[in-house]
Amino acid sequence: MWNMSRFFPVFQWMGGYDRQMLRGDLLAAVIVTIMLIPQSLAYALLAGLPPETGLYASIFPIVLYAIFGTSHSLAVGPVAVISLMTAAAIGELGDQGIDYVTAALTLAFLSGIFLLLLGVLRLGFLANFLSHPVISGFITASGILIAASQLKHIFGIDASGDTLPELAHGLWVSLGQVNWITTALGASTVVFLFWARSGLKQLLRHFGFGPTAADMGAKAGPVVAVFLTTFAVWAFDLSERGVDIVGAVPQKLPPLTAPSFDPSVLTTMIGPAILLSIIGFVESISVAQTLAAKRRQRINPDQELIGLGAANIGASFSGGFPVTGGFSRSVVNFDAGAQTPAAGVFTAAGLAFAAVALTPLVYFLPNTTLAATIIVAVLSLIDISIIQRAWRYSRTDLAAVVATILLTLGFGVEIGVSAGVLISVLIHLYSSSRPHMAIVGQIPSTEHYRNIDRHKVIIYDEILSVRIDESLYFANARNLEDRIYAMVAGRDAPRHVILMCSAVNDVDMSALESLEAINSRLADRDIKFHLSEVKGPVMDRLKKTTFVEDLTGQIFLTHDRAVRTLRASNPVPGNPSNDGVSL
Amino acid sequence: MWNMSRFFPVFQWMGGYDRQMLRGDLLAAVIVTIMLIPQSLAYALLAGLPPETGLYASIFPIVLYAIFGTSHSLAVGPVAVISLMTAAAIGELGDQGIDYVTAALTLAFLSGIFLLLLGVLRLGFLANFLSHPVISGFITASGILIAASQLKHIFGIDASGDTLPELAHGLWVSLGQVNWITTALGASTVVFLFWARSGLKQLLRHFGFGPTAADMGAKAGPVVAVFLTTFAVWAFDLSERGVDIVGAVPQKLPPLTAPSFDPSVLTTMIGPAILLSIIGFVESISVAQTLAAKRRQRINPDQELIGLGAANIGASFSGGFPVTGGFSRSVVNFDAGAQTPAAGVFTAAGLAFAAVALTPLVYFLPNTTLAATIIVAVLSLIDISIIQRAWRYSRTDLAAVVATILLTLGFGVEIGVSAGVLISVLIHLYSSSRPHMAIVGQIPSTEHYRNIDRHKVIIYDEILSVRIDESLYFANARNLEDRIYAMVAGRDAPRHVILMCSAVNDVDMSALESLEAINSRLADRDIKFHLSEVKGPVMDRLKKTTFVEDLTGQIFLTHDRAVRTLRASNPVPGNPSNDGVSL
Repeated sequence: MWNMSRFFPVFQWMGGYDRQMLRGDLLAAVIVTIMLIPQSLAYALLAGLPPETGLYASIFPIVLYAIFGTSHSLAVGPVAVISLMTAAAIGELGDQGIDYVTAALTLAFLSGIFLLLLGVLRLGFLANFLSHPVISGFITASGILIAASQLKHIFGIDASGDTLPELAHGLWVSLGQVNWITTALGASTVVFLFWARSGLKQLLRHFGFGPTAADMGAKAGPVVAVFLTTFAVWAFDLSERGVDIVGAVPQKLPPLTAPSFDPSVLTTMIGPAILLSIIGFVESISVAQTLAAKRRQRINPDQELIGLGAANIGASFSGGFPVTGGFSRSVVNFDAGAQTPAAGVFTAAGLAFAAVALTPLVYFLPNTTLAATIIVAVLSLIDISIIQRAWRYSRTDLAAVVATILLTLGFGVEIGVSAGVLISVLIHLYSSSRPHMAIVGQIPSTEHYRNIDRHKVIIYDEILSVRIDESLYFANARNLEDRIYAMVAGRDAPRHVILMCSAVNDVDMSALESLEAINSRLADRDIKFHLSEVKGPVMDRLKKTTFVEDLTGQIFLTHDRAVRTLRASNPVPGNPSNDGVSL
Repeated sequence: MWNMSRFFPVFQWMGGYDRQMLRGDLLAAVIVTIMLIPQSLAYALLAGLPPETGLYASIFPIVLYAIFGTSHSLAVGPVAVISLMTAAAIGELGDQGIDYVTAALTLAFLSGIFLLLLGVLRLGFLANFLSHPVISGFITASGILIAASQLKHIFGIDASGDTLPELAHGLWVSLGQVNWITTALGASTVVFLFWARSGLKQLLRHFGFGPTAADMGAKAGPVVAVFLTTFAVWAFDLSERGVDIVGAVPQKLPPLTAPSFDPSVLTTMIGPAILLSIIGFVESISVAQTLAAKRRQRINPDQELIGLGAANIGASFSGGFPVTGGFSRSVVNFDAGAQTPAAGVFTAAGLAFAAVALTPLVYFLPNTTLAATIIVAVLSLIDISIIQRAWRYSRTDLAAVVATILLTLGFGVEIGVSAGVLISVLIHLYSSSRPHMAIVGQIPSTEHYRNIDRHKVIIYDEILSVRIDESLYFANARNLEDRIYAMVAGRDAPRHVILMCSAVNDVDMSALESLEAINSRLADRDIKFHLSEVKGPVMDRLKKTTFVEDLTGQIFLTHDRAVRTLRASNPVPGNPSNDGVSL
């Protein structure tokens, strides 16, 4: 078993598996299976694929994740945002001679390979470049897009598009063809599902159910809606009156399938696959870490990438489409008492049974019901409060959120999330390229030196003490030069400039050249340049260069020692002034 | 005159113009004009354009820069790297139905508009994202590419390409057609020019010239080479024996021209124009700042963008191609005593005279001579020592230099410089995404807290003091969480965690959420979370959120006060240990 459990986390829990765990896992599996049947069909509809692919995407991927993944509660399968991204990606393919189903298999395959690669190369940290505001903005905008994309099913009309303007236009021009029976069915399902979230739970408790049972019952709202509307369509023959139904779904286990290896298809798909993988990974790891923290378990991000990669490759060979760890299903799984990934395996068995035995039952299920469950599910993703919080906290984060939301709504998910990442990075570079700098003085009778604009401090004419609050690197090197020259130009002939480096964690080569330039340009004006409070790792590096020898001044351990030494060596007595205004 | 001098820096010096300045400017103009005639022809050859365009590109652009620019010494015109980038860009156009000359005009136009926009929007700081190692690597690689691209003229053969492998292959397959007379002429010019750089100066001094005159004389080496080789071609009828000559050059003032406004041409050109503008701006501003510093003048980067933008738009309407401030011509201008931008205007007049009157004289000028002047000029750009310095100083900077050099040589200037920028930014993000963190303890009998791995310090079991040496933002927020949890897990039940924020210059929203998560997850384990040494601007921001109220612990002004307060409130006496190993 040497090291097997490192590569196959399944061995970490398999050994200690007992009857009590089995009971928890089985119960959770039954509940999750019931919840997943309509959800899987709905996400297939959202991705623009045949309904059975949703079931298939929940069977083998779950089993593979159970073997390779590290979370004990995560439920893997189709989720809303990834299904929307899948629809957008396969929509881009146009006429490349492959059908949507193969395109989705290819996307899952590429996504699986990419995730696996990231995991093997331990590059999980790349997901950190998606800032929280960008993720929130993206998820909110995606929720709006998803809800808008489902309105056509609610109204029973034809309309499509990847952006909000396209969707709005599509709905507008088709308004004449609205099917009112479909609309009534869909709208009442939406109302019922909203009510089920709070009202149903209270009702069940009123009828004497325990709190957990009532909670589970409320979560079964979509199943109830599916039963009722399917029955209505069958009983009143509504499909004859224009209500679109799911229709015949093949009654079989997941088929063995293969992605396309056509280079032109692969080239078109690789970009979307990468974006979708990163978004899926971020969603999944957030859910997994939240749930693991509650039970004090640990998640290994690189192993998670491998688990999700295996799940997606599994999806591509078993008739599915891209999958990831979903929030709502994982929470249900956790709350229902799942103890180990075995719960996922039992869920997969339940869904396999459904694919073989229960598919005839959904023949009369109207698409409008599935659309209603999607709309109600995704509206909980929409979180406008992020805009308000960003407004209060930071204008730069606000810019990132608003840009991500508007670009996603206006230009689709791929441009939206790419732009969000780019904007986050640019904002970070911009703000660190204009670092905070302060002229500092001594707080009387202490060794502390603080900003002269914020504190009453002692300063000396002949010594200019400057603190810089940022690591020195290429983006701010020139700015440092400019501002030091400007500060020197604004003073009455200082003889020493001390740069206080307490916040400098790194000095790259560009910044080193700038420090050399400052040193020699100050030397031209007979001003000595000193450094203080240089950190160990930075000092180690500077010692490798000639900078320390070329420096006209010295490098001091503390700023206080620097000022005292320079004062002592200075024959001209300066005038200490007792406030920060006069220098 | 209200504010006129802000938008037209020409008014800043025009008023005080006197006879002494006039004398300096006139002398500099004569010397620069003589130097520029062969140089302009050579750079036109390098850009793959007719020789006269080099002269035209030096006339109106110089005048426009004199009006809008802020440097008193900068000489604007075609330069080696920009000419190479121009050749690469117009080579990409292929069969879009416009000739090379119009393509170059369009490139200059787009570059001018882009520079102007950057200037008006005050975005000059963007140039800072090119790190010094990337610039050095790019300039070195460009110098090699330029020298290699001129070998075909030296050998009198046909060979072209934008990358080193292409150029090498082109030369290899044409080796059979080498024209030996051309080669002899070119090779001896190269040798002469190298010698002129050092030997000619000594010779002139030997013959009794003063040091300045000898220096100027040595710089006239290319003019001497042009005279001698032109004479040789004329006298021995070498053009009949296969020596390529410049031939007939139109004898006229710069023509009125216009760029192409064809959308497909503009789309193809916009990317190259942006890259070329940024490189040109970086080169120009470096030269301008170096020269300005010597005379204690100031350069305004945003106004420089406007000056260079105007110069390039001028080039596009007067038969030129993209221009920028050149190093060698500016230094000559400065050394020859130019006092104001009027020197540039006089140079323009001199070149206009040359375009009208002197062009017949270059009829027999062999291309191989121009190629030799280019090769000798660019070899001074090549600076391999940057690799050595980066090797010693920083492996990450080394990676950026080496990648920029190899990608530029292997895939051309545009991919080289784009990749260089991308690599710099990624390296910065990567290193700041894994910040340096240290567990700190008290240095006995001081208020200083230092890394337990580097110093003998006092620590207490119940208090875990952690210092983070980086601003907290989205790229390192999750890493902070993971590492704090790992540190806590590795200790013997600490009751307090204090995060020392002396190096934290910013906390963005992602990091704020991580701090909240740390706070609540530590609370689950009955550990209080405190902050110390939070900077003013960071504290101002945190106060706008509920974080300060939700914090289980406190925020302390100094780390020492934090430890003393928590020790005092702690009824269980800890065991202070006197070294960093035991906790």
